[in-house]
Amino acid sequence: MNKKGIAVLGSTGSIGTQTLDVVRAFPDLFHVVVLTCGSNATLLVAQALEFLPDAVVIINEEQVDFVKSKLGHTQIAVYSGMQALEEVVQFESVDVVLNAIVGAAGLRPTVKAISCGKDIALANKETLVVAGELVMSLASQYQVKMLPVDSEHSAIFQCLVGEEANPIEKIYITASGGPFRGKDRSILTSVTKEHALKHPNWVMGAKITIDSASLMNKGLEVIEAKWLFDLKVDQVDVIVHPQSIVHSLVQFQDGSLKAQLGLPDMKLPIQYALSYPNRLKNTFERFNFMDYPELTFEKPDLETFKNLALAYDSLRKGGNSACVLNAANEVVVDAFLKDKISFLGMSDVIETVLEKVNYLARPSLDDYIESDYAARRVAQEIIN
Amino acid sequence: MNKKGIAVLGSTGSIGTQTLDVVRAFPDLFHVVVLTCGSNATLLVAQALEFLPDAVVIINEEQVDFVKSKLGHTQIAVYSGMQALEEVVQFESVDVVLNAIVGAAGLRPTVKAISCGKDIALANKETLVVAGELVMSLASQYQVKMLPVDSEHSAIFQCLVGEEANPIEKIYITASGGPFRGKDRSILTSVTKEHALKHPNWVMGAKITIDSASLMNKGLEVIEAKWLFDLKVDQVDVIVHPQSIVHSLVQFQDGSLKAQLGLPDMKLPIQYALSYPNRLKNTFERFNFMDYPELTFEKPDLETFKNLALAYDSLRKGGNSACVLNAANEVVVDAFLKDKISFLGMSDVIETVLEKVNYLARPSLDDYIESDYAARRVAQEIIN
Repeated sequence: MNKKGIAVLGSTGSIGTQTLDVVRAFPDLFHVVVLTCGSNATLLVAQALEFLPDAVVIINEEQVDFVKSKLGHTQIAVYSGMQALEEVVQFESVDVVLNAIVGAAGLRPTVKAISCGKDIALANKETLVVAGELVMSLASQYQVKMLPVDSEHSAIFQCLVGEEANPIEKIYITASGGPFRGKDRSILTSVTKEHALKHPNWVMGAKITIDSASLMNKGLEVIEAKWLFDLKVDQVDVIVHPQSIVHSLVQFQDGSLKAQLGLPDMKLPIQYALSYPNRLKNTFERFNFMDYPELTFEKPDLETFKNLALAYDSLRKGGNSACVLNAANEVVVDAFLKDKISFLGMSDVIETVLEKVNYLARPSLDDYIESDYAARRVAQEIIN
Repeated sequence: MNKKGIAVLGSTGSIGTQTLDVVRAFPDLFHVVVLTCGSNATLLVAQALEFLPDAVVIINEEQVDFVKSKLGHTQIAVYSGMQALEEVVQFESVDVVLNAIVGAAGLRPTVKAISCGKDIALANKETLVVAGELVMSLASQYQVKMLPVDSEHSAIFQCLVGEEANPIEKIYITASGGPFRGKDRSILTSVTKEHALKHPNWVMGAKITIDSASLMNKGLEVIEAKWLFDLKVDQVDVIVHPQSIVHSLVQFQDGSLKAQLGLPDMKLPIQYALSYPNRLKNTFERFNFMDYPELTFEKPDLETFKNLALAYDSLRKGGNSACVLNAANEVVVDAFLKDKISFLGMSDVIETVLEKVNYLARPSLDDYIESDYAARRVAQEIIN
């Protein structure tokens, strides 16, 4: 059997390293052909020496000499800069691009990979948040698979297997509720990044952990789901489920619901995206009902967590709105992590940016990139 | 499109009447070609005049003249007696036999229908409990679909759609726990049939309601599942879930679990069995998490509810053991409903019958029928 060639974009992050764990467990099925990272040169070099890909990319150009010096004795090609991502995804040896880049920066490499007929394992939800309509239409045109890696979208994707002919009535995306579930705005005025970075169930990167605390992550997932599964906004519902065992649900037009469940472990959706439609036997810890005798569900609090309401609004408005929302959010999360803005201040800035940036009903790829820049500029001005 | 011709065996019972509700809702997809019942002649006649099948069967021969007198002006053929069931399932017009007969009496008509290449929508779990190995091997030989109607088995069947190539690691059959969940044996010594007939979630016939209270129903479902899904005994687990929302779960070899959920309403699994693999839009009440904010799970109490342990034992022992268990259970439930035996006395009788009836490792169809008679005889002797 041919091994599947995998390009791991963002290989030194949380999803990236777990992807390599999966590849390591199935050396006969998968091999890594491209590794890329932002600036963690030391880890990138170690990964490259273990997996011997065709090429690596380090985005931060200041570190390319270090990487070259460490890999000079190998056959591995070393590139640097964002532009290089769009080159390496085209390689003949690449079958699947696992995109685990953080933020809107993931969009261009995804678009390039799709236009070269590569399947996409998508952990970079911003690709669909920013330009979902355009990306899904490209994916359909080039007949590539869009394989979700987010646990919620993977859950829905798993529930839809074999149900291709059966219309979806609605989906429920589950949300842990994050560390501030049940708190009201008066308490949230004083929370710090240390509080926000303590997620109750999932170990993840800093950006997505803050997004989980503010429920923006769930907002982005609603937008991602709308495009990925071709739904109307009102077909996508969010339900808070603090145990993070039910990863999401699909309700079909006969009223039957299907759910995918399991312990919160990103390696499962990563493995499924790589092995789909097959399921590979593994040694991941198994779910046990005795450890979770109660699974609870509650409505999300859209008053306190305004980000989720803003995400729904931007999706209803359409055009470049979700792109603007996402860009503004990236700026405010960065500012929050640098103590330049308060937790609740984040949604206020996003709301203002959504009002100020020009609305475009039918943006091109360049329009999206321009709206992204504009939103970042406006958000930065408000914060400074 | 050709309408699917449906033979409804047991049309006047709970499953039978709900099946007719489903047919009534989709007159362009389904038509009833056979109706059969035990002795409710009045309802059978009313159903026949509404659905105009090719034939009806009334098992109770004393009532056949009444039925004939009421249907004499129609083209509907009227039969009586058990033997007639094996004739009518063979009709050319029958595409699917929905078998909702209560008890081991359902076995012979199922076997005949399979050998005539008819798909089976199986609500009569005893067919598989009594002779699962033989029936499934026949179904495979004649390439007929075995479509489960039990809500638990339908749930697993729904979760397996599109996963045909992926081995099952285990399944969880959910159990409401019945009206006596959490009670110990000292309390159960004094319960009456009135207590036992009050099921917390499901409205069903008397036999299955008693079986639910004693957990024998769950034991029979474990046996049914073992055969239907080709599993080892240890791959079938039971978990008590008092809300009856999660109808059962499948765990695959990658550790991922899929569940099917919904309000407790038998019309959904009935409809699915008839429309599979399609799902038909309907107006059944939809599940709402706000009505079920907590879904809870606990281990079944095998000390108090010995029937479930006996069912596992008989399945491990194999051969004619489950057939004997089932026959003894039919006798004791009947005796309990006639106040001739106590609630806890039921398992004691079954246990003794299992010890007394000759064990056969590889029974033929006739051996099963004979074991069934023998078990009934022994059980009756103990009770008298």
